[in-house]
Amino acid sequence: MKKSYKSFVIILINWGFLGSIIGVFVGSTSALLLNVNDLLTEVRFENPQLILLLPIGGLIIGFIYTKLGQGSGKGNNLVYEHVHYGQGGLPLRMGPIVFISTFITHLLGGSTGREGAAIQMGGSIAESVIRFFNIDFIDRKIFLMTGISAAFGSAFGTPLAGTIMGMEVVSQGKFKYEGLIPCFIGSFTGHFVTITLGVQHEHHVIKSVPPIDTITLDKVIVLSIVLALASILYSQMRHGIEKYSRKYLKNLMLRGFIGGTLIVALVYIIGTRDYLGRGLPFLDEAFVGQISPLAFLAKILFTAITMGSGFRGGEVIPLFFIGATLGNTLSPIIGLPTSFLAALGLISVFCGGTNVPITAFIFSVESFQGQGATYFFMTCIISYILAGQHSVWPSQKLYEPKS
Amino acid sequence: MKKSYKSFVIILINWGFLGSIIGVFVGSTSALLLNVNDLLTEVRFENPQLILLLPIGGLIIGFIYTKLGQGSGKGNNLVYEHVHYGQGGLPLRMGPIVFISTFITHLLGGSTGREGAAIQMGGSIAESVIRFFNIDFIDRKIFLMTGISAAFGSAFGTPLAGTIMGMEVVSQGKFKYEGLIPCFIGSFTGHFVTITLGVQHEHHVIKSVPPIDTITLDKVIVLSIVLALASILYSQMRHGIEKYSRKYLKNLMLRGFIGGTLIVALVYIIGTRDYLGRGLPFLDEAFVGQISPLAFLAKILFTAITMGSGFRGGEVIPLFFIGATLGNTLSPIIGLPTSFLAALGLISVFCGGTNVPITAFIFSVESFQGQGATYFFMTCIISYILAGQHSVWPSQKLYEPKS
Repeated sequence: MKKSYKSFVIILINWGFLGSIIGVFVGSTSALLLNVNDLLTEVRFENPQLILLLPIGGLIIGFIYTKLGQGSGKGNNLVYEHVHYGQGGLPLRMGPIVFISTFITHLLGGSTGREGAAIQMGGSIAESVIRFFNIDFIDRKIFLMTGISAAFGSAFGTPLAGTIMGMEVVSQGKFKYEGLIPCFIGSFTGHFVTITLGVQHEHHVIKSVPPIDTITLDKVIVLSIVLALASILYSQMRHGIEKYSRKYLKNLMLRGFIGGTLIVALVYIIGTRDYLGRGLPFLDEAFVGQISPLAFLAKILFTAITMGSGFRGGEVIPLFFIGATLGNTLSPIIGLPTSFLAALGLISVFCGGTNVPITAFIFSVESFQGQGATYFFMTCIISYILAGQHSVWPSQKLYEPKS
Repeated sequence: MKKSYKSFVIILINWGFLGSIIGVFVGSTSALLLNVNDLLTEVRFENPQLILLLPIGGLIIGFIYTKLGQGSGKGNNLVYEHVHYGQGGLPLRMGPIVFISTFITHLLGGSTGREGAAIQMGGSIAESVIRFFNIDFIDRKIFLMTGISAAFGSAFGTPLAGTIMGMEVVSQGKFKYEGLIPCFIGSFTGHFVTITLGVQHEHHVIKSVPPIDTITLDKVIVLSIVLALASILYSQMRHGIEKYSRKYLKNLMLRGFIGGTLIVALVYIIGTRDYLGRGLPFLDEAFVGQISPLAFLAKILFTAITMGSGFRGGEVIPLFFIGATLGNTLSPIIGLPTSFLAALGLISVFCGGTNVPITAFIFSVESFQGQGATYFFMTCIISYILAGQHSVWPSQKLYEPKS
């Protein structure tokens, strides 16, 4: 017993030490990512003609991944796969490459988020720490999970959801407690470092949550099914585009160029830049006002093309956007408050697109101060079940990447 | 794909149907348990001399388990073990027996809760449903989990925590998503049935949550360590008493009689009945006023003897009591608001005693409307790590029952 307590304390110190190191580095790079990105977005707002360069941007990103990628092109999936199979080690250059590509994407108006870049940088940093300290095969997956947690916690300012994300995202239907302490320490450290470096996170407010009664519960169930369908539509379209272009557009540069051209064409056809970048002003509007009822469809199209053709950033914020706008659209039809439905959509489509129900629920608690927790819990479960069908089948794969 | 969707829908209907049935029956029996218990507690308050019969009560309960137990004496652990190993089936009589024993315990003043009785009844009901519908070996564990979820959700009026409880409690460090839908349906159905049958659940209020800063976080960390130690003390003492009496008091009737006598002696030595039953008035007081600083120690002693000598009920409410009173005691020392520390203690000791960190966190969100979520999250993780040491060892058993 005494011996095991001693080794327990040693493990604990180890986890604390390495978790903090990963947290500090990931938090710092996340701050860099978020701050530079905000700056580039401002530049883009001031120079709307920059969108015309998006095809060239796609070409450059294709060039970078062709020449320097070393497999980094698989993005988040590569990080997740390494948690499972872990042979060989992640390419360390993955982080810097995805940062540069994300900067290009955001400056020129690709429709994307940025937490994917943070997660890939998190993976790179964790891999560096693993190599530097010569960490063995069994523990390396725990520290890769720590990198993911630190990245998610710092990218969104949600250290609780970040902690759970690292443990939950790497495999569907299995929750890896062994990473609890390092993920926790990494996520919180990352978050505080990012905050200290001046990052301010966005907040959305639910103005009123309907009281729990049978009618509202039924409405929320129906709504959750519709929202899950939207996340399925997004996943299918995004993977369809990627699959198609992998078959017919093997050249990454050409793929990026054509993808960029399509986005430019869409901007001029639809006549708005609302769906470019993260689209925050529009996302904010979904919580308070009336927006175009087909906004969610437009965003699905913009982001599926952007991500499917090789641009970089992240898919979580687009999922937020799709969900919140669809919630907004359905608000007058379903007869529930707009801000509540926008929030419900945001959480639901996030959950459906990423298959992390506990993370999504805890994200809702952190983002909306626990308001409407019962509804968020329900929508997460429904979304997870319907959209993540791979995870409820007896024949499910252990891990089926969706994002 | 189409075929798998069809089987998915069939599974879903199956889960919905059986989950609802389990929820309805468990919710009804929980309502019975809670209502009868409240009544018996009132009778006890009006007739304080009933405590003198506690030794006789212990003798009767010992008699019941000796003659009729069929292994039911292992209580919750038996339910959890069956989720894992599942051979043979739970004894159906487990539920009725534990109800009667719990009624006796509460009427005569044993220091205990009641959710253990609910969970064991939940197991019995799930087992009946499994047998009635001839459910196969693979699915039976899912429906036993559903019974646990329905019981916890309905016993505390916390359907979210109930859902997670069924998936989390059965094994440390593994989170069983396969039960998500039936546990969810069972827990919510159970909760609504219980509410419909007139049960009112207790609520505690946190008056103020300190803002998040380094000093408060440090204080919460230190406090969480102390709280985890309290939950370890309880677990050790309770199992010590049980182990000792198993060795030297093999006769269950004699064991119950002696345990009851010890409780009576303690009541007269300490000179208060505050630690008998659930001790709700005192627990409420811990959130608002000043209580005896050693209340947590007294409760540890009372409940460890009660549960260790064979009385029935549940250990969660005593864990709440121990945590809330210790939080209250430490409030002036640590310089944080009383109601906040009482809540923190309640959650922390619950988590430490039962090893269900996600359940405990979600319980905090449900009970305190998301207030102070960051602190609760931290305390759950610290408590889980320190008190549940079995679960962080490489050599951990898959399942090491603590309660």
